[in-house]
Amino acid sequence: MKKSVYSVAVVGATGLVGAEIVSVLEERRFPIADLQLYASHRSAGDEVRCGELTARVDLLERARFEGTDLAFFAAGEEVSAEWVERATQAGTVVIDTSQLLADEADVPLIVPEVNTADLGSYADRLVVVSPDAPVVALAAVLKPLHEAAGVTRVVCSSFEPVTHAGRAGVDELQRQTVELMNGRSVENDLFAHRIAFNVLPQIGELLAGGASRGERQVAAALRRLLADPSLPVSITRSYVPVFYGAALSVNVETAAKVTAAHAREMLRTAPGVLLQDDASSPQYPTPAEVVAQDATLVGRVRDDEWGNVLDMWMAIDNIRRGAAVNAVQIAELLIRDYL
Amino acid sequence: MKKSVYSVAVVGATGLVGAEIVSVLEERRFPIADLQLYASHRSAGDEVRCGELTARVDLLERARFEGTDLAFFAAGEEVSAEWVERATQAGTVVIDTSQLLADEADVPLIVPEVNTADLGSYADRLVVVSPDAPVVALAAVLKPLHEAAGVTRVVCSSFEPVTHAGRAGVDELQRQTVELMNGRSVENDLFAHRIAFNVLPQIGELLAGGASRGERQVAAALRRLLADPSLPVSITRSYVPVFYGAALSVNVETAAKVTAAHAREMLRTAPGVLLQDDASSPQYPTPAEVVAQDATLVGRVRDDEWGNVLDMWMAIDNIRRGAAVNAVQIAELLIRDYL
Repeated sequence: MKKSVYSVAVVGATGLVGAEIVSVLEERRFPIADLQLYASHRSAGDEVRCGELTARVDLLERARFEGTDLAFFAAGEEVSAEWVERATQAGTVVIDTSQLLADEADVPLIVPEVNTADLGSYADRLVVVSPDAPVVALAAVLKPLHEAAGVTRVVCSSFEPVTHAGRAGVDELQRQTVELMNGRSVENDLFAHRIAFNVLPQIGELLAGGASRGERQVAAALRRLLADPSLPVSITRSYVPVFYGAALSVNVETAAKVTAAHAREMLRTAPGVLLQDDASSPQYPTPAEVVAQDATLVGRVRDDEWGNVLDMWMAIDNIRRGAAVNAVQIAELLIRDYL
Repeated sequence: MKKSVYSVAVVGATGLVGAEIVSVLEERRFPIADLQLYASHRSAGDEVRCGELTARVDLLERARFEGTDLAFFAAGEEVSAEWVERATQAGTVVIDTSQLLADEADVPLIVPEVNTADLGSYADRLVVVSPDAPVVALAAVLKPLHEAAGVTRVVCSSFEPVTHAGRAGVDELQRQTVELMNGRSVENDLFAHRIAFNVLPQIGELLAGGASRGERQVAAALRRLLADPSLPVSITRSYVPVFYGAALSVNVETAAKVTAAHAREMLRTAPGVLLQDDASSPQYPTPAEVVAQDATLVGRVRDDEWGNVLDMWMAIDNIRRGAAVNAVQIAELLIRDYL
């Protein structure tokens, strides 16, 4: 018999993404019977409210996952590497916001507006991956173009905020900004170079061949989401000195010609996408303005000067839409159709 | 008879670019007989040293340019629109760092490492344009690739500092940063949106069709510099919250295959280019690290996953290499070959 309420866990519950997942569960009235929150020593013992429930944050080491229906993982790849399998062995379905398992063919990678049909394979390993924010944005915006005209090439540069690296990223940008504004020298702790008033073209380690791990992951994930394993995707990912909200500069080539006017028309009704491309202000989305939005914003949609090419600009709240909302939407689909 | 010393003027002498031009003239021991410095009311009367000369900044309204051999213009398009022709009518050769005349076919647009041969046409209108920093970087790096393998497509996203908008840009980023770090709300004055901890995908007004004026100018200028009027150039230019130093994420397609290893080899000896692409630190250039460098730095040169495509990352000191050094190099060529 189908359950009406569920036992839910959040691993990394006090991190940026984990805390946002708890908020989104509350906002969207996810049917929670009981809520287990796990974190490290730093925040174990804290009390967290979620709707009418109050849960005390427990040490992850004490997690057993017995009877837990769904566990959100939001504590990074190392924690996922150690704990995801323990959860699934207890029969818990895991929604992982880390990209640890994003390349595994038997683990579905889901953006609900794009590929809900792929969710059924969650049953193979009891894991679903919620992809990285740039993938959520690119997949939602490019899906309708791909269906209408066949995307044949994507060239993208990302402008990503320090929250991609969690609270430690926030701390480093804040500290370095204050130090520089006071004329003091800065030290790099988390990032390989200064991030305050600078741009770092590296997200994830650099691999043989020169791409970063984060770049490889986005390209591979986008191909999976658009169900086009040979789609050429060129991406350069960079950190910019921004706290929240990512932007993407995207150049798209299609098999059939799509004018900018036609693309705007399609994007106006695309699920999970909000077109912000008026002649009036704001003419285009920016990271600051996308924060707290549940859609990927898109603007500056324009015809390139040659060929079947469009240029556009996207912005996404990396923590909320790019992680927490996407993960909770996956959970909603799981309980609607499977659990 | 060829002169051995020259009468030189700098219009906008106390702005970021103008002051840097004065410094570079001194460093490179440009043979100056007398130096006229012009600015607005704000800084008229200031004394400025240049080597053994001391010059008092005069009001631009008082400029006559009689007997002036060379005038550097570094006060923006409006000032150039009003004053360049007055200078050339007095027989002065103008080197304009504004892009007012960049599209005029009878005005040469020069990056000394790239197209010195085009300089002779300065004589038509007595004006030479020193192009915008992204053009200086792209032209210097792509020239050897174009000669070796035929560049057939360029897709570029820029990360540009507020100094592109002069001292007013510095003031706005500084003020907004301090306000936000103190939890206060901010107002936008110079830029259409908040720039602190944000990204603005607009440099110059947005034109019909959706490209910005700054994007059109870079594409057109790059085609001129590479002497390839039909080269497809897609560019999105953005301001990032950085004071000095621009970065460019560039995707290049060539007619013949160029491996990343071969491209690095070519760039190692390209004039005006410094390859910074070691496995050791610093692995790639950043805006903070390019400041005060006279070359365009290039790194993260890598083979794309498909086709004759390379990805790379460039950084350029927009005020120094991208404007002042380029302008003074043009002056050096003018006096060597023509004046």
